[in-house]
Amino acid sequence: MSKFAVLGYGVVGSGVVELFYKNKEKIEKKAGDDMDVKYILDIRDFPGNPYESKFVKTIDAIVNDSEISAVAECMGGVEPAFTFTKQCLEKGISVSTSNKELVAAKGDILLKLAKENNCNYFFEASVGGAIPIIRPLHRCLAANSIDGVAGILNGTTNFILTKMIEDGMKFDDALKLAQELGYAEKNPAADIEGHDACRKICIISSLVYGKHVYPDSVYTKGITEIKLEDVQTVNKWGGAIKLIAKVSELENGKILPFVMPMIVPFENLMSHVDDVFNAVMVSGDGIDKTLFYGRGAGKLPTASAVLGDVIESVKHDKTVFSQMWDSSENNEFVEDRKKYEAVMYFRVSANDSVKAIINNCGGNIIDESADGICFVTEKMSFEKSEVVAESIKNSGSEVISIIPVLEI
Amino acid sequence: MSKFAVLGYGVVGSGVVELFYKNKEKIEKKAGDDMDVKYILDIRDFPGNPYESKFVKTIDAIVNDSEISAVAECMGGVEPAFTFTKQCLEKGISVSTSNKELVAAKGDILLKLAKENNCNYFFEASVGGAIPIIRPLHRCLAANSIDGVAGILNGTTNFILTKMIEDGMKFDDALKLAQELGYAEKNPAADIEGHDACRKICIISSLVYGKHVYPDSVYTKGITEIKLEDVQTVNKWGGAIKLIAKVSELENGKILPFVMPMIVPFENLMSHVDDVFNAVMVSGDGIDKTLFYGRGAGKLPTASAVLGDVIESVKHDKTVFSQMWDSSENNEFVEDRKKYEAVMYFRVSANDSVKAIINNCGGNIIDESADGICFVTEKMSFEKSEVVAESIKNSGSEVISIIPVLEI
Repeated sequence: MSKFAVLGYGVVGSGVVELFYKNKEKIEKKAGDDMDVKYILDIRDFPGNPYESKFVKTIDAIVNDSEISAVAECMGGVEPAFTFTKQCLEKGISVSTSNKELVAAKGDILLKLAKENNCNYFFEASVGGAIPIIRPLHRCLAANSIDGVAGILNGTTNFILTKMIEDGMKFDDALKLAQELGYAEKNPAADIEGHDACRKICIISSLVYGKHVYPDSVYTKGITEIKLEDVQTVNKWGGAIKLIAKVSELENGKILPFVMPMIVPFENLMSHVDDVFNAVMVSGDGIDKTLFYGRGAGKLPTASAVLGDVIESVKHDKTVFSQMWDSSENNEFVEDRKKYEAVMYFRVSANDSVKAIINNCGGNIIDESADGICFVTEKMSFEKSEVVAESIKNSGSEVISIIPVLEI
Repeated sequence: MSKFAVLGYGVVGSGVVELFYKNKEKIEKKAGDDMDVKYILDIRDFPGNPYESKFVKTIDAIVNDSEISAVAECMGGVEPAFTFTKQCLEKGISVSTSNKELVAAKGDILLKLAKENNCNYFFEASVGGAIPIIRPLHRCLAANSIDGVAGILNGTTNFILTKMIEDGMKFDDALKLAQELGYAEKNPAADIEGHDACRKICIISSLVYGKHVYPDSVYTKGITEIKLEDVQTVNKWGGAIKLIAKVSELENGKILPFVMPMIVPFENLMSHVDDVFNAVMVSGDGIDKTLFYGRGAGKLPTASAVLGDVIESVKHDKTVFSQMWDSSENNEFVEDRKKYEAVMYFRVSANDSVKAIINNCGGNIIDESADGICFVTEKMSFEKSEVVAESIKNSGSEVISIIPVLEI
């Protein structure tokens, strides 16, 4: 009999308990052992809850109980989750987490601690919700040199952009709808400004390139400035604007992670990933391209990923699946996003001299109206695109939008 | 130092050797050990090959060498691969295979043998080429009740259908092009008649539902009868015709696997999976829907999957990841495909009385011309659709096509 504890009884934690008891028989068959939830840690009271007798208010009961072999950490936030996780790992109790904030902040430390204590720190649920991405990246694609990973890693922003594309809604209206439907928080900043996606691409970057990448070293731009006009022009041209979190390895050995709105051409399957769904595309020398798609958030989808990890820790409690990466002293291995090269989409206001500038930078006009001119350039660096933007401004024209086109 | 052997130096086997030496340093880091290919088994001679000294012509040298801890079986076909695999497993040597024919025929026996000998029989490469699907299904989604799995599991037929959809090519011309490009064999029967996809859905069904499913118990229909007219009508209506391999669990406890052309509505991401790419969609009670996409065949993509498995066997050579399923005495747990229920697309020749029949079965006419009438029905069983077809024939009209619409 393997007993485990659930830390935090919010959306994800209660989902873990619900899904476990729903599929208990199948789960035990997979784990090769009887299993049960022994404790649920939450500072709140849940009178009348069917699992009321399992609730505890401190971590001590859990880490001092030798029957506990695994923990599901679904608290969110760095503290006290960090302290609790350390206490568990130090006792050799494997921890499976959905807490992207903690993994992005302290993953290197916790993975090292798990290895030292001959147990596992699993974080499949921290990126892409239900989508298996961490284990496939680490295990199934281990024979590849990974050139890059790009994903739609935030469901809220993808829902908003889908509403803009499909229903012609303006950003503010789409955000309001997302809030009404419970997809966006009252304070939506973490989603719409890209910070949530940033944490996730940090975790992927750390895992793939072996060195802890901190969120504050990653250029992050959200979708608050996306205009309906651009969404529609791009749609006609043959692509969809998506909030893309991306990392790639450069020839100089550095890596280039970022989060920003990009144009995904319709030939790329990610352009068809709509609503709250997430997707991650991986490019490697053996696989060419592989894509993983599913629900990136939500109670049961996230619980599914956490529980998958818990089952693996119970089933193979003698095996350390060291998904370790090194700590990083500085950000020197992270390249400046200005070096990133892409075809650039511009929307500028029309004037007499702007067409000559467009011509000069190999620009192709894709839409022209009284409101302005939209064109796409040859592939160029962000650095170069800023020079182009400057010369357009100097000609007296306004640069309304610059959006890079995704290539993976 | 972990040494492994490669059985078969055809497309996949030579890809395994090539990819291993290309990424040797990264692979060893992942495996946590130095690694090398010690033997390559092939009855043919490869004079001048850079690895000439590693070639052997019998399995004895490999199974009697205590240095060998893992084998990559890339021979294809049931024999002698079955005998060789048994010999390896009996010695406690883990085997990773790309051989779908063998897994579909003898998977239950080989998995049991691996477990008895405390080693692993891995087969990630046997389904979906580069796409991680076996490990995610088995491990990451372990907390789910899986309602069903549906996939585009054959690249050749998907290429042919894509050419019909996008370039208006007829089946015969698209097949010829696929042969010219090396995507289809001279004798293309295994692909276009669905047998290759059938083996793969058998492997998935066995893994997910825990009982060996034999190819001859699975209804299999290929794409040879697909008409360009239907491809185009369906495309206008809002979907793509794809060769779908599918399995689902029914309320009566039986499973229903089959392979046949189906209409995939554009809302389903699989409708956008084109060319030689494969995709697998999994539906479960925790995840809702998850999709895995990538190259389903080819030298390096398949080698990537085989090598991923080899790395895992080397890294965790004390751990048995028993992905076992039971042997099956009979096919009684496999439901007849006539029970399968779907919205059905019909193309029939027009006559005076046919519209009344269409009306009677809740049919919706989606296209009408001198050539015939196309309509979609309400959801009905195949059994019922055959009754409808019969009454249409009795009315003097010809039933040209019946294609079910995929729902997952």
